[in-house]
Amino acid sequence: MKKPLILVTNDDGITAKGIKALVEVAQKLGDVVVVAPDSPQSGMGHAITIHDPLRLKKVEMFGVESYECSGTPVDCVKLGKYVVLKDRPIDLCVSGINHGSNVAINILYSGTMSAAMEASLNGIDSIGFSLLDFRADADFEPYKPFIEKLMRSTLEKGLTGGQLLNVNIPNIPGEEIKGMRVCRQSESRWVEEFQENEDPMGKKYYWITGSFQSDDMTEETDVWALENGYISIVPSMHDLTDYYSIEKSKWMES
Amino acid sequence: MKKPLILVTNDDGITAKGIKALVEVAQKLGDVVVVAPDSPQSGMGHAITIHDPLRLKKVEMFGVESYECSGTPVDCVKLGKYVVLKDRPIDLCVSGINHGSNVAINILYSGTMSAAMEASLNGIDSIGFSLLDFRADADFEPYKPFIEKLMRSTLEKGLTGGQLLNVNIPNIPGEEIKGMRVCRQSESRWVEEFQENEDPMGKKYYWITGSFQSDDMTEETDVWALENGYISIVPSMHDLTDYYSIEKSKWMES
Repeated sequence: MKKPLILVTNDDGITAKGIKALVEVAQKLGDVVVVAPDSPQSGMGHAITIHDPLRLKKVEMFGVESYECSGTPVDCVKLGKYVVLKDRPIDLCVSGINHGSNVAINILYSGTMSAAMEASLNGIDSIGFSLLDFRADADFEPYKPFIEKLMRSTLEKGLTGGQLLNVNIPNIPGEEIKGMRVCRQSESRWVEEFQENEDPMGKKYYWITGSFQSDDMTEETDVWALENGYISIVPSMHDLTDYYSIEKSKWMES
Repeated sequence: MKKPLILVTNDDGITAKGIKALVEVAQKLGDVVVVAPDSPQSGMGHAITIHDPLRLKKVEMFGVESYECSGTPVDCVKLGKYVVLKDRPIDLCVSGINHGSNVAINILYSGTMSAAMEASLNGIDSIGFSLLDFRADADFEPYKPFIEKLMRSTLEKGLTGGQLLNVNIPNIPGEEIKGMRVCRQSESRWVEEFQENEDPMGKKYYWITGSFQSDDMTEETDVWALENGYISIVPSMHDLTDYYSIEKSKWMES
């Protein structure tokens, strides 16, 4: 039987520990091609590079066909599909493992999740994985069996029409994980506190520093699942239409 | 009566013609503050700047309090809310007028729409406007009455809990516009063709060049509305959960 073709990417960059762990799992399940950013791309959301040319460089890493790319995570998926794989059918795209949470609305800011979203826009089943540990030396080893299980079952059963899964893993010992839980995205927001500084010329500059807040903690949310020892899986989609509001918005037509 | 406070931003940059037209409309309706990028930020999606400091510079433009910002459109909204307006209540955030379409899935790639999305995440009613004319010298004048009407009625009635409207305007003479139409986001995709070139050192580089494709053209879609002479309004949201799939995805839990 033909082995499935798996495209792997991330947003922390090709040298991050998280993508190495993800490639190691993917190699057990199929033929793996890696196209990942050559520099950290956290917070890049669904950005694409249109004002600059893109670079793509073959690198000897992971023992599989691997490329580093000068662009964003979404650029990586586009280059992977069109340039590297020349539109060969991709069975699964996995992104991550992100160093840090992509829970709730963070799916919008996350390069990891936007890469997975871009794959799903192209009809490719895709999963973004994140561990709630932002440290560069985070230990991904204990979570590999869960990731392998979900990737394997996804390859077997398939998702619905290029669906996208947002998977977050709590930062607790592997043996304490109670299982995986299908959830909805929790309502949440970032409250920003900009750090103001002055440069040597006396001009002000700002760093974004925010705190994540969620009061929406009912049992069906991803935030609840993670706080209660589960891996959260949010089936996600690219249609942002607020269908519930369409009828109620008809006054706008007059 | 206190005038409403309107925050204006865009992704084409503060010197673009489109934002000037939008500020002119907004000035008729309330007190206006502008925070917009100092350079073009098309295709930046929901990117935020976390690896670099942000600059914010007061500029004499539009005859209203205006700032140019070194960051992305989403950064502009965050700086506008927290640094410039110090969390003063914003009644409406408008973004654009974008030079070019943000129809269908382009809401994901668009800096214009991500700025509006960021405002809505903060509970601020917001509208992103786009004209289907990407030229720098596009003529926005004929469409101002429609924009004013929608902004005025939105300020009067309010949207539901910081909702977000994605408004696209067809590139036809103003008198031929049949009206505004509340729609859903059309299913669509980009088919990319990367242009490959060699630099003077003989190294390859790539430019993204794609074509937008949609086969989903039923009467309730934004693509249909625009092709039939209507301004499209898609009520949009930040919850990407695919609720329909939650029950069907329970096999992932075992």
